[in-house]
Amino acid sequence: MLTEKPVTRFLDELASNSPAPGGGSVAALAGSLGAALTSMVCNLTLGKKKYLDVENEMKRIVVQSEELRKTFTRLIDQDTDAFNKVMEAYGLPKETESQKALRTAAIQGATKEATLIPLGVMKHVVDALALTKVVAEKGNTNSISDAGVSALMLYAAAEGAALNVKINLSGITDQEFVGWHSEEVSSIIRTCKNMSEDILNVVQKKINP
Amino acid sequence: MLTEKPVTRFLDELASNSPAPGGGSVAALAGSLGAALTSMVCNLTLGKKKYLDVENEMKRIVVQSEELRKTFTRLIDQDTDAFNKVMEAYGLPKETESQKALRTAAIQGATKEATLIPLGVMKHVVDALALTKVVAEKGNTNSISDAGVSALMLYAAAEGAALNVKINLSGITDQEFVGWHSEEVSSIIRTCKNMSEDILNVVQKKINP
Repeated sequence: MLTEKPVTRFLDELASNSPAPGGGSVAALAGSLGAALTSMVCNLTLGKKKYLDVENEMKRIVVQSEELRKTFTRLIDQDTDAFNKVMEAYGLPKETESQKALRTAAIQGATKEATLIPLGVMKHVVDALALTKVVAEKGNTNSISDAGVSALMLYAAAEGAALNVKINLSGITDQEFVGWHSEEVSSIIRTCKNMSEDILNVVQKKINP
Repeated sequence: MLTEKPVTRFLDELASNSPAPGGGSVAALAGSLGAALTSMVCNLTLGKKKYLDVENEMKRIVVQSEELRKTFTRLIDQDTDAFNKVMEAYGLPKETESQKALRTAAIQGATKEATLIPLGVMKHVVDALALTKVVAEKGNTNSISDAGVSALMLYAAAEGAALNVKINLSGITDQEFVGWHSEEVSSIIRTCKNMSEDILNVVQKKINP
């Protein structure tokens, strides 16, 4: 598993001349990093006298952000696996007409599955940003820049995943699937953009009051 | 070293109730991820017949992006080390007047040093984005979404590092240092925003021609 490799080795594999892992896995990792930073702000708020009135809220949030972190981290490997399945489908024999038909169907099926991974990343970013907003507003002010970096990483995760959804959609012939998911991507990106801008406004005001 | 730990362990340490590693190290890691993706696009372009005319340019770029990747990766650990030094300075004794003066000077010195790490990240992002622009324009079109994710990660690195510069500057009393570097941050962010938007326009056009 990619995520069990040292950070430096993960980066080596990313930079190599193999197409996977690539941008899709990086988008999922950006989600993990964003969720981890939101957890960190919660953990640096919990148990502090000054923040006793938000203790229960922070406890609830850290459970959810840790759950999201695990989900994003699974998606790092899942994206690479899904990409490899698309490559396998492209490698199927294409000599007879029946082989060609089977290969095309396999490519289409694998590409649809590969599309759903970054789309999943995008949906989880919306949930994660909702938690980041609360920690930026109510969490330990000493960690306000960490809440900001969390929002930035989550937004980059959504935008990066969107590029991966779109490049996959460009190879899918099922126009209903393409139309539906294209709209979904635009709508999620709008939401994520608004949410992350809101959070970054809160952060900037706390850094420069 | 943080960067020698498995990705999952790095994320665990990030999420923990220790303030380091935090957003500063994540910003540097986002730089490494961005540079690695630019290297990957070069490596997937090199040796391909269709891209023979950009072979030498890609060879030059991959050398530079790999150098930048190493620099960003060093900055992941350097940011955490610099933060720990600030914390050590805060831990100095403050009972006598002379101890107080020494402690204040140590905090100011360590905070200035800690400011220069994310500022370094920002400066390297400008160089990295210049390389990403070329690979987005001339590199293997099959990897165009990876060039896009590279630009997104690099921009998030710059914005995340800027938040870290600003939170450090807010604790520094040397107004000349603060003024100079505040302006520098604004100027670099403007540059990075323009560069990454340019790259993402190129990417979007290639994904949806």
